[in-house]
Amino acid sequence: MITDQIAEIRSRKPLVLNITNYVTVNDCANILLAIGASPIMADDEQEVEELAALSQGLVINIGTLNRRTLRSMVLAGKKANELGVPVVLDPVGNGATRLRTEAANLLLKEVRCAVIRGNVSEIRMAYAGSGRTKGVDADDGEAIPLANLVRMARSFSAETGAVIAITGGKDIVSTADKSYVIANGHEKMARITGSGCMLTALVGAFCAAGCADLDRVVAAVAAMGLAGEIAAKECRGTGGFRALLLDAISNMDDKRLGEGIKVEEFKGGDEALSGHR
Amino acid sequence: MITDQIAEIRSRKPLVLNITNYVTVNDCANILLAIGASPIMADDEQEVEELAALSQGLVINIGTLNRRTLRSMVLAGKKANELGVPVVLDPVGNGATRLRTEAANLLLKEVRCAVIRGNVSEIRMAYAGSGRTKGVDADDGEAIPLANLVRMARSFSAETGAVIAITGGKDIVSTADKSYVIANGHEKMARITGSGCMLTALVGAFCAAGCADLDRVVAAVAAMGLAGEIAAKECRGTGGFRALLLDAISNMDDKRLGEGIKVEEFKGGDEALSGHR
Amino acid sequence: MITDQIAEIRSRKPLVLNITNYVTVNDCANILLAIGASPIMADDEQEVEELAALSQGLVINIGTLNRRTLRSMVLAGKKANELGVPVVLDPVGNGATRLRTEAANLLLKEVRCAVIRGNVSEIRMAYAGSGRTKGVDADDGEAIPLANLVRMARSFSAETGAVIAITGGKDIVSTADKSYVIANGHEKMARITGSGCMLTALVGAFCAAGCADLDRVVAAVAAMGLAGEIAAKECRGTGGFRALLLDAISNMDDKRLGEGIKVEEFKGGDEALSGHR
Repeated sequence: MITDQIAEIRSRKPLVLNITNYVTVNDCANILLAIGASPIMADDEQEVEELAALSQGLVINIGTLNRRTLRSMVLAGKKANELGVPVVLDPVGNGATRLRTEAANLLLKEVRCAVIRGNVSEIRMAYAGSGRTKGVDADDGEAIPLANLVRMARSFSAETGAVIAITGGKDIVSTADKSYVIANGHEKMARITGSGCMLTALVGAFCAAGCADLDRVVAAVAAMGLAGEIAAKECRGTGGFRALLLDAISNMDDKRLGEGIKVEEFKGGDEALSGHR
Repeated sequence: MITDQIAEIRSRKPLVLNITNYVTVNDCANILLAIGASPIMADDEQEVEELAALSQGLVINIGTLNRRTLRSMVLAGKKANELGVPVVLDPVGNGATRLRTEAANLLLKEVRCAVIRGNVSEIRMAYAGSGRTKGVDADDGEAIPLANLVRMARSFSAETGAVIAITGGKDIVSTADKSYVIANGHEKMARITGSGCMLTALVGAFCAAGCADLDRVVAAVAAMGLAGEIAAKECRGTGGFRALLLDAISNMDDKRLGEGIKVEEFKGGDEALSGHR
Repeated sequence: MITDQIAEIRSRKPLVLNITNYVTVNDCANILLAIGASPIMADDEQEVEELAALSQGLVINIGTLNRRTLRSMVLAGKKANELGVPVVLDPVGNGATRLRTEAANLLLKEVRCAVIRGNVSEIRMAYAGSGRTKGVDADDGEAIPLANLVRMARSFSAETGAVIAITGGKDIVSTADKSYVIANGHEKMARITGSGCMLTALVGAFCAAGCADLDRVVAAVAAMGLAGEIAAKECRGTGGFRALLLDAISNMDDKRLGEGIKVEEFKGGDEALSGHR
């Protein structure tokens, strides 16, 4: 499953355009550099189409949305679609406000996404127009059976053509007919801002270096989780954890990822998830 | 004085909406997560009222103000007032420019603040419409007698109903009739950006988990100072200090805070400040 | 060459106004504090002239430009010119999009810059209106002979009156008739976002504390490179590198810089560059 995805990024250094929020934009640029990609962060409608045309990947993140940047996201997304540049969407906080829900819906209608990455609430909201997220964090209280999530992911993928990544305690990465469950990660990742945004950026790098296929999204999600595990071993608090996470990504290679990945194809039934690796 | 304020935050995980500057927004989100709260950072007028209604606390910081975000601050503040959500104001750089002074004055007129936190110059300007701050940093050269500052804080509190926190070498936290002086902190805190903003966010978390009373503001100010002391012990420069500060907050609990707090009720006269703890 | 430039900054604590991008703004503020300056980051046209008038230096960085902030840059730049406040320009990504090229050209036309700092592509584009940068990173593939770069820098300096700093593997700092080549630095600096922006901010601090002369720009460029070397020795990844870089700047003094600087006056011919220090 993990072959040479990271080597590909490090040799091709794909340019990834990010129209993203100002909270975690620095972390996103740094994680893209750490994995070997070349980040550009921009949001003005006068230049995003040109930048999308120069890029091998486009990441759209609605974390601190406004009217001006939403227009830029649509413009860049359409240009990327026109040129075959893969678009990765992170509908941050989707469902928390009308602005976010409408923005996510608009983006899903106007832009063909190669990957959609969010937590359960965000993806559920994007999929169904229902539910209510608690701010921008996943609602850990929700105990939706994995099989139901996989069913939703598959159906959402069939509808949009996108690879769907639902991340949380365990992560689901799915197309319309094939789904993986990834058990990498560490609870400390939820104790810093930007874990989700950085993962989405990372997915952008993996797709930009090759194509937006299921294996690459699985690799990106597992790489982030594995980096979280590595960082958690040494950190003494959440301040150090962020730096260690970037360290781990900057030192990640395909061999390490292949050895550390905990992934299993979902065949139906939660019992299938007992073993991993 | 310190009972279970931090335990309360960690168990309730209050949602704190921050309309803040783009310089230290990441640090503010991270310190809120470190203490156990759930941050949302947003600034668009189309969604801030909805977000304020979902939140248990609202932090307004005018660090990189513009016309668009000022409107959002007023809208969110009014909604928070309507719903009884405590509002914490940080009038960053108040007095440095007409825009900031007018913005601070507008916010004080339109929004009922539960806590106002700033350095001497910012609070003095907010209080009196006089003085001139040097950029956004406190002017260390000012040697205003503590008793005068306490008098100002009490009078400002009586006028606004807010708990006033004036932070600097020593910190004053005051209502109209009761004032504490806190001697925690370390000079290295002034060597990184965001010490003040992070403290204001932290005050937001303490208030959001319970209510905006004097004890909680004292606890937040002392926790930040104590974290600075802990971080200063180990750091070898200002780059590491920031991470260690977040580490210290993420490891802080009520016991540690109770043991490390250096607080004294102000009874008048500087000599009262000789001992602490 | 290095006399007391850093001591000057640490004793004068010059106020440096930054109209900059939201990606690396926090790093820029932190590096300014680390070297001993007082940063203000702001971008609203209602206040930037007032802030420029309070400041001893102005740094303009077009990293995440938009129409609103471009107006502010011009206003602040003109005010700084009027008052003799040195302006340092970083034309980030110049050449990558029409917006950036036009913005850089507008700024060069409307504002008299004391220093212009960029990578080869950015400076070449600013100089000649030709070329095409790859996003915002330097195109390492280009192997333009040093002598050609020096010729361009001298000619660009003669045209603008600015000290020109072209940074990359080796750095060139030049006026119209005198040029230095600096060999400090480490390749890991290109693995984090903000190395260039932070350097530009640092140049702002050195100029703001004294004046924008060749020696001070050389000192700033060398200090950044030396900090990169120091940080690279200890770091285990790119996450830690950023913090160690700030640590190194916060611990830098003129003695250390004088001992570590690798600078040589350019006399023509690449062979002149064999030795350094």
